[in-house]
Amino acid sequence: MKDSLDFVDEANMGLLTDLYELTMCASYFDNKKFEPATFDLFIRRLPKNRSYFLFAGLEQVLLFLEKVRFNDEHLEFLRNQGFKEDFLDYLRNFRFSGDVWAVLEGTVVFPNEPLIRITAPIIEAQLVETFILNTVNLQTTIATKASRVVYAAKGKSVIEFGLRREHGVDAGLKVARASYIAGCSGTSNVLAGMLYGIPVFGTMAHSFIMFFDNEIDAFRAFTKTFPEGSTLLIDTFDNIKGAENAITVAKELEKMELKLRGVRIDSGDLVNISQKVRRMLDENGLGYVQIFASGDLDEYRVEELLHKGAKIDSFGVGTKMGTSADRPYVDIIYKLCEKMNTRGKFEPIMKLSEGKATLPGRKQVFRFKDKNGNFVKDVIALDGENLDGEQLLVKVMEKGKIIYEMPSLEQIRKRALENVACLPDKYKRLKGAARYPVLLSPKLKKLMKELVETLRRIEGANVRSC
Amino acid sequence: MKDSLDFVDEANMGLLTDLYELTMCASYFDNKKFEPATFDLFIRRLPKNRSYFLFAGLEQVLLFLEKVRFNDEHLEFLRNQGFKEDFLDYLRNFRFSGDVWAVLEGTVVFPNEPLIRITAPIIEAQLVETFILNTVNLQTTIATKASRVVYAAKGKSVIEFGLRREHGVDAGLKVARASYIAGCSGTSNVLAGMLYGIPVFGTMAHSFIMFFDNEIDAFRAFTKTFPEGSTLLIDTFDNIKGAENAITVAKELEKMELKLRGVRIDSGDLVNISQKVRRMLDENGLGYVQIFASGDLDEYRVEELLHKGAKIDSFGVGTKMGTSADRPYVDIIYKLCEKMNTRGKFEPIMKLSEGKATLPGRKQVFRFKDKNGNFVKDVIALDGENLDGEQLLVKVMEKGKIIYEMPSLEQIRKRALENVACLPDKYKRLKGAARYPVLLSPKLKKLMKELVETLRRIEGANVRSC
Repeated sequence: MKDSLDFVDEANMGLLTDLYELTMCASYFDNKKFEPATFDLFIRRLPKNRSYFLFAGLEQVLLFLEKVRFNDEHLEFLRNQGFKEDFLDYLRNFRFSGDVWAVLEGTVVFPNEPLIRITAPIIEAQLVETFILNTVNLQTTIATKASRVVYAAKGKSVIEFGLRREHGVDAGLKVARASYIAGCSGTSNVLAGMLYGIPVFGTMAHSFIMFFDNEIDAFRAFTKTFPEGSTLLIDTFDNIKGAENAITVAKELEKMELKLRGVRIDSGDLVNISQKVRRMLDENGLGYVQIFASGDLDEYRVEELLHKGAKIDSFGVGTKMGTSADRPYVDIIYKLCEKMNTRGKFEPIMKLSEGKATLPGRKQVFRFKDKNGNFVKDVIALDGENLDGEQLLVKVMEKGKIIYEMPSLEQIRKRALENVACLPDKYKRLKGAARYPVLLSPKLKKLMKELVETLRRIEGANVRSC
Repeated sequence: MKDSLDFVDEANMGLLTDLYELTMCASYFDNKKFEPATFDLFIRRLPKNRSYFLFAGLEQVLLFLEKVRFNDEHLEFLRNQGFKEDFLDYLRNFRFSGDVWAVLEGTVVFPNEPLIRITAPIIEAQLVETFILNTVNLQTTIATKASRVVYAAKGKSVIEFGLRREHGVDAGLKVARASYIAGCSGTSNVLAGMLYGIPVFGTMAHSFIMFFDNEIDAFRAFTKTFPEGSTLLIDTFDNIKGAENAITVAKELEKMELKLRGVRIDSGDLVNISQKVRRMLDENGLGYVQIFASGDLDEYRVEELLHKGAKIDSFGVGTKMGTSADRPYVDIIYKLCEKMNTRGKFEPIMKLSEGKATLPGRKQVFRFKDKNGNFVKDVIALDGENLDGEQLLVKVMEKGKIIYEMPSLEQIRKRALENVACLPDKYKRLKGAARYPVLLSPKLKKLMKELVETLRRIEGANVRSC
């Protein structure tokens, strides 16, 4: 087992949960309900302007399942909340002992497809719900958003720049991880660089320029400290004047056989300014100096800038990617799909709440590809069905132990880039993308029909659709 | 000094920063720039559908400033990134030694008002930027959003329910904290309850109902474990059938002189269903049983439900509040406003980038109130000006030590509720609220005019507005 790289110690995350997980489990315990059950983690629907999801966060989920415990401080708090001693004793010895099947990180996925499938005694399977949702929601939301930004950049480099407005310390780290998985070239977050081995980037802020008496003094001071690979911020007073100063400094560096790496533009009309600055650089024989743009960027803006002919080599994308600002969550849920009955046999379960119906039974997802490897359609089937496509869910944990070789971050990133490349362009347009076909197998459909009939009979369920 | 209650150890957060803070500081160090400077933390503008901000996060900022260090692992990483030994030596002994003035947590604030004002040697003041922005952005964004939800609920209770879709572990805790400050009655997050003493709430999920053979069996099992104060989820199959089962169980409890606390509705037409269920409960002498509603709620939906006559006593608000979904960040920035010149005198500084101009000099914010204590207007003035209003910035740290008594979470919450109550209703409407007047003092305006002229002369700055 690989140790967590994070500052979050999963072993102490037992109480990072909704209270209802604990009240339900206390009642299961009290009513001697220990039978195994299976839960599916899946995303209910595609939000506006999303046509696929890039799945991320599995590594942290598995580390949590293997390590989570309830310590004395936790138990004392729960005692004061009115939980009974026998249940607290159970929690004291809690170990997750279930089996887990999952889609691998970096896989392109779609609504209703089980992403993680957990089979465990009901109390164990229930107690871990909240942490898992929290982890997968954040990383999948961000990986999906970042994947769109990288797609819009058409091969230009994208750096994740959002730490200052990401949601806290953990988000700062996980956003850097998920963005890198999605194809960003690096992050500004130094701690993420240290913990995950992600390349870190960064140069100077306006305050640096303003702290010196003149802009060019600031440029010279900075290149004195970093003679190789400096990028100078040119918009503090005026972009064009700033570019002139940067050119002067670049020429001074050339005399020492050094090269300025780039200039950064952070405000104003990026199309117009980048074109002007590119021309100025080129006219001075500085074709090698790159133009780096930042300031309120997201996939829509990046696409627009390139479409309008902006001369930008690299994008620093912050807040809007790091918070997935147009949609800061996915509709991810964790639902019971089967339980063991009193005769020791698993039976499928289906939820019918209005607009919130679920797919019953233990399932597998099959992906069909054309001869070039491009994705054609997915089929959600019952476990054990034998279809032709690639099976997306693989067994990653057995009896509470991780049984698969955790991939490196680079391997996950490679999978993500290959996956997105195999999704045809019509499914990747930023707005108005075609709907990728996800079908249900005939056997699964038949099972659903039977269950609806049974539930109508037993519970008088007011079933509108499924 | 109060120790941090969090699992985040601020002492180890030295590298939770954008790389450019470190490159700038390395260059300041290299160029022997150690003069003091002052930075303002403020929010640039009001987003759509926000008319004020509720400031939160100061406690974590101050703990960070007092505790942050660079450890051996950090320094080794920076060495490998090419930072020089003399600068690493500086970081090894790094202590923040500055003075800090701040608005107190739970204060209603507006754009351009300095919220935290830091005066310290330039390297220290610069190095702490990213963590401070990250902390205040998250908590202020959420406190502001939650304050709107609480306002819309018109005295009905609001519980923060969003842990599963908040952005990671740290956000889960800080969202619970900020929502409670804003007036929520509690949270579902058990760890937040333990760490911050926030009341925790929670009952059951649909899976609990589905794990039993019948809905009523599940209700009976749960009230067996929690005979006092149970809330039963009634929409798993059909709300009305569920309400009938809940009534049966409530009547059984009454025979044991016990009372059902409530029923929860999580889907469907909440107006219609809540009215029907209220009538059913009342007709059965169960007027004391409360109706709890959840499912995709935010301030707009809460306002609409109450306006349409929904019979709801308590709202569980999750994802949309916990991520501030319609606007998951505030435009918070940290800008240089003065520096010490070579003659040892502080001189004001102003940034003029297009659309990003800043207010120069060391400043104070004065709040003017009417005779009932209601807020009338704010004036941003230069430090040392003597205006009539209440001064919002108070000194909280001197030479790197916290010098004010950190308020309890309850005290902060009280301040927040009082502050929001003193903001007239016209400034609190969820959409189309009036713009609260924030003026600049004549002295500040005069200074800005002078600086613009000087900058035009020296840098050829293309000043469009300020």
